[in-house]
Amino acid sequence: MSYNLLKGKRGIIFGALDENSIAWKTAERVHEEGGTFVLTNAPIAMRMGSINKLAEKTGSKIIPADATSVEDLEKLVAGAVEELGGKLDFVLHSIGMSINVRKGRHYTDQNYDWTQKGTDVSAMSFHKTMQVLYKHDAMNEWGSIVALTYMAAQRVFPDYNDMADNKAYLESIARSFGYFFGRDKKVRVNTISQSPTPTTAGQGVKGFDGFIAYAEKMSPLGNATAQECADYTITLFSDLTKKVTLQNLFHDGGFSNMGVSNEVMEAFVNEQK
Amino acid sequence: MSYNLLKGKRGIIFGALDENSIAWKTAERVHEEGGTFVLTNAPIAMRMGSINKLAEKTGSKIIPADATSVEDLEKLVAGAVEELGGKLDFVLHSIGMSINVRKGRHYTDQNYDWTQKGTDVSAMSFHKTMQVLYKHDAMNEWGSIVALTYMAAQRVFPDYNDMADNKAYLESIARSFGYFFGRDKKVRVNTISQSPTPTTAGQGVKGFDGFIAYAEKMSPLGNATAQECADYTITLFSDLTKKVTLQNLFHDGGFSNMGVSNEVMEAFVNEQK
Amino acid sequence: MSYNLLKGKRGIIFGALDENSIAWKTAERVHEEGGTFVLTNAPIAMRMGSINKLAEKTGSKIIPADATSVEDLEKLVAGAVEELGGKLDFVLHSIGMSINVRKGRHYTDQNYDWTQKGTDVSAMSFHKTMQVLYKHDAMNEWGSIVALTYMAAQRVFPDYNDMADNKAYLESIARSFGYFFGRDKKVRVNTISQSPTPTTAGQGVKGFDGFIAYAEKMSPLGNATAQECADYTITLFSDLTKKVTLQNLFHDGGFSNMGVSNEVMEAFVNEQK
Amino acid sequence: MSYNLLKGKRGIIFGALDENSIAWKTAERVHEEGGTFVLTNAPIAMRMGSINKLAEKTGSKIIPADATSVEDLEKLVAGAVEELGGKLDFVLHSIGMSINVRKGRHYTDQNYDWTQKGTDVSAMSFHKTMQVLYKHDAMNEWGSIVALTYMAAQRVFPDYNDMADNKAYLESIARSFGYFFGRDKKVRVNTISQSPTPTTAGQGVKGFDGFIAYAEKMSPLGNATAQECADYTITLFSDLTKKVTLQNLFHDGGFSNMGVSNEVMEAFVNEQK
Repeated sequence: MSYNLLKGKRGIIFGALDENSIAWKTAERVHEEGGTFVLTNAPIAMRMGSINKLAEKTGSKIIPADATSVEDLEKLVAGAVEELGGKLDFVLHSIGMSINVRKGRHYTDQNYDWTQKGTDVSAMSFHKTMQVLYKHDAMNEWGSIVALTYMAAQRVFPDYNDMADNKAYLESIARSFGYFFGRDKKVRVNTISQSPTPTTAGQGVKGFDGFIAYAEKMSPLGNATAQECADYTITLFSDLTKKVTLQNLFHDGGFSNMGVSNEVMEAFVNEQK
Repeated sequence: MSYNLLKGKRGIIFGALDENSIAWKTAERVHEEGGTFVLTNAPIAMRMGSINKLAEKTGSKIIPADATSVEDLEKLVAGAVEELGGKLDFVLHSIGMSINVRKGRHYTDQNYDWTQKGTDVSAMSFHKTMQVLYKHDAMNEWGSIVALTYMAAQRVFPDYNDMADNKAYLESIARSFGYFFGRDKKVRVNTISQSPTPTTAGQGVKGFDGFIAYAEKMSPLGNATAQECADYTITLFSDLTKKVTLQNLFHDGGFSNMGVSNEVMEAFVNEQK
Repeated sequence: MSYNLLKGKRGIIFGALDENSIAWKTAERVHEEGGTFVLTNAPIAMRMGSINKLAEKTGSKIIPADATSVEDLEKLVAGAVEELGGKLDFVLHSIGMSINVRKGRHYTDQNYDWTQKGTDVSAMSFHKTMQVLYKHDAMNEWGSIVALTYMAAQRVFPDYNDMADNKAYLESIARSFGYFFGRDKKVRVNTISQSPTPTTAGQGVKGFDGFIAYAEKMSPLGNATAQECADYTITLFSDLTKKVTLQNLFHDGGFSNMGVSNEVMEAFVNEQK
Repeated sequence: MSYNLLKGKRGIIFGALDENSIAWKTAERVHEEGGTFVLTNAPIAMRMGSINKLAEKTGSKIIPADATSVEDLEKLVAGAVEELGGKLDFVLHSIGMSINVRKGRHYTDQNYDWTQKGTDVSAMSFHKTMQVLYKHDAMNEWGSIVALTYMAAQRVFPDYNDMADNKAYLESIARSFGYFFGRDKKVRVNTISQSPTPTTAGQGVKGFDGFIAYAEKMSPLGNATAQECADYTITLFSDLTKKVTLQNLFHDGGFSNMGVSNEVMEAFVNEQK
């Protein structure tokens, strides 16, 4: 399936680790739709992943970058503009990491050095990326910047730990920077709040499988997959959504506006018997 | 317990049916806090209830009124001002009714005459009440108007049926009229979005007991009771909340900002085994 | 510009009055993208408009229907399925009307017969449409239903009058019905909350030109036009947004998430001098 | 005015700098309502302020603490429990600081060391405070923790700079920690989103006077003052709001739910002429 929605558009895609990644699926779909891009990831993540396969498949260059390093980001942006032959039209930020989660530290027992590191990687990196793009005037008018987020930014999902707060911080950065990027450069900035997705990263969260099943039963259309998220992201990169900005867009089969579904209530009532 | 928070304040309380009613508990608490008021209910509801007992206990007059009738509301407001000896400081709107719920008509199979009647009783009645108060200049400056609502106005609770839409309509009326009432008369207008509460009215909703148990497990502090809602309402009628207006205030033990609790997830996961 | 995004898709478009209408622009874009549809409007609106021109241009049949009449809607749906040769994939509801606005009745001085009529036309009509589609199983799986709304549903715009409450009611219906339509038929239901748009209908609102200018200065990307709304609607009808449901989607150049812009503050501060 | 709402209750109040501070007014009101407390502030802030006067007036001890230092917070909490003679019932967090704002760095040109320091002081300090209280089991059941915030967490106020993102992060922490504090200790956690207030801290923000005037005209009841915020906070510390938790409560004369007021539109339209 291809509509040529992104013909002639250039961009950067952060965070493709392996073929379960949303960023991976998005890169494939952008390629199908005619867009060209540079792939990037942290040097350490790249060693674990298989990003070369993706680069080959999509004819893309990889430029490693630590997204917390302004210096790395400047090289990335300059390199992408050079490689792709012009200013950028789209950027996908799909980065998140909590050492507290990885090391099993409870939310009420945080190691604050880890918390701060998580904030830097998961949220501040988005500000840094946009600041570099803005200062170097690297985006074309009517370009589109998207970051992936999760509803824990609005509501409590206890096992999501400090990633919840990181995502709230990230979404705020999208709005705050989105104003200036919109006003000064005609670039839109949005976040997609995606269903829980069985990516390699997501699977680190405790009790994730049970939660996926719960979200599936709560959502009238079921959970959105990584592939569907890629499709949705395509629309946000296309010229059909030029006036959508500062938004946090739920892509979740309806979960976000459910109080409770009949299906979840049934499971709950059965268990109480 | 009494703090004299409402000493010298006068008002009208709609919707006290029996001692399970939030309006009933509120009337008792207002009385304890030194406020005086007129009780009102629809003539038909009064026949079923035991409002006389409440009137006696709190030394209040009852003025029956069909809240969908502007004429009745005008008599009520004029009567209350006369009875209480001056303009009003507070009003509680605690009225809701869906014939579709009562008669078991599914949300996808509405009888629209019933839907329209429910909208009139549950939501438009709030506009009518405020329009009468506003036109007759019957509220004192810094008075407080409160209507009770439910989170189905924001999120889907399938068995709540057309009451969900009525509550959304009600909350919008609170904002819309609240602007004019604030600007022109210095009166605040808010809604309280209360936990599911085992009132006589609430018990008409299908599967209500299971839902109460679910909400209890989802809410970090458990469900808010009718008594606690009365306490909360007192603060909104008091002089300590003068600048709170146009708000929908969740009084629900935290339910509204939960994605999922560990307790609900446990029940869900157990049931899946 | 055409991407063939809607090739083979069939639908109904409500509310195309004249070429300023969002529904009109949407019909043109759907046609360009390969979709086929039936146009409909109230018999009275059709007399005032020029819908025949649109029908001719897009090769569409017109089936007049009073959207408050279940009988008319049943004929419309049956007629559309027959005309288009199969079940439907998309529906656009772009209907709104307030007699209080038209006749200049202030929000604090409503004529309630008019209010009720406005609710019926502007909001209940959306429930009726979906109920007919649902009962007659007239939508294909993964179909998409969209209604147009305005941010007055969430925040106060004083001159929007009772349309604000109608839109809140409409958005609630989208969520409530969207659950059942999603769960039972795999159909998504969303509302688009569009910038103030200089349509023929919008121009009835008092002080509309000044407000358009205000919204333009408040929105980092400026107001979204009717044409841009048509583009956005196309994405929601396409297969790229299958898991977006129960959402109210702001299409407004960023207005909805602005507290204040530098541009509006400047105008305000200048005026104070 | 005193209602004895806080008789017998003990707490800690962060952030009273001088008599314009919301925390200062709150301390006075808590004292009037019968509560006892320890005052705290950063050593550097204390040198600039006049907190001794407040301590004397309210018979309170001062325990200086750097709110980013877990060690300091542990001493503070232990000291407060000892000084006051028992576990705590309330805590007010009224702390915020952005070096980028102070030094005039634009939001699109952040110094990230400063950004990170601001996040630590303005938001992470709230987590640290709660973690210390939670681990040392220093709160009584049905205690109440409140942090002050601002609507820039939800909507763009360009001159608020990185404080917007800090406040979003703070509000998320309130929800995330509030779940565990509620479930495990029966303690509620909320944030108050206050009108722009002419405190000594607030005055550092560029164009603040113009913005205060704008907010005044936008809010149907006008801006909420520091004194009124103190009153409102009292209700949240009292036993009348036991089931309010995880909420962000707007205390702003209605600003938060305004799209535009007639008064602001008038000023805007006049300026355009």
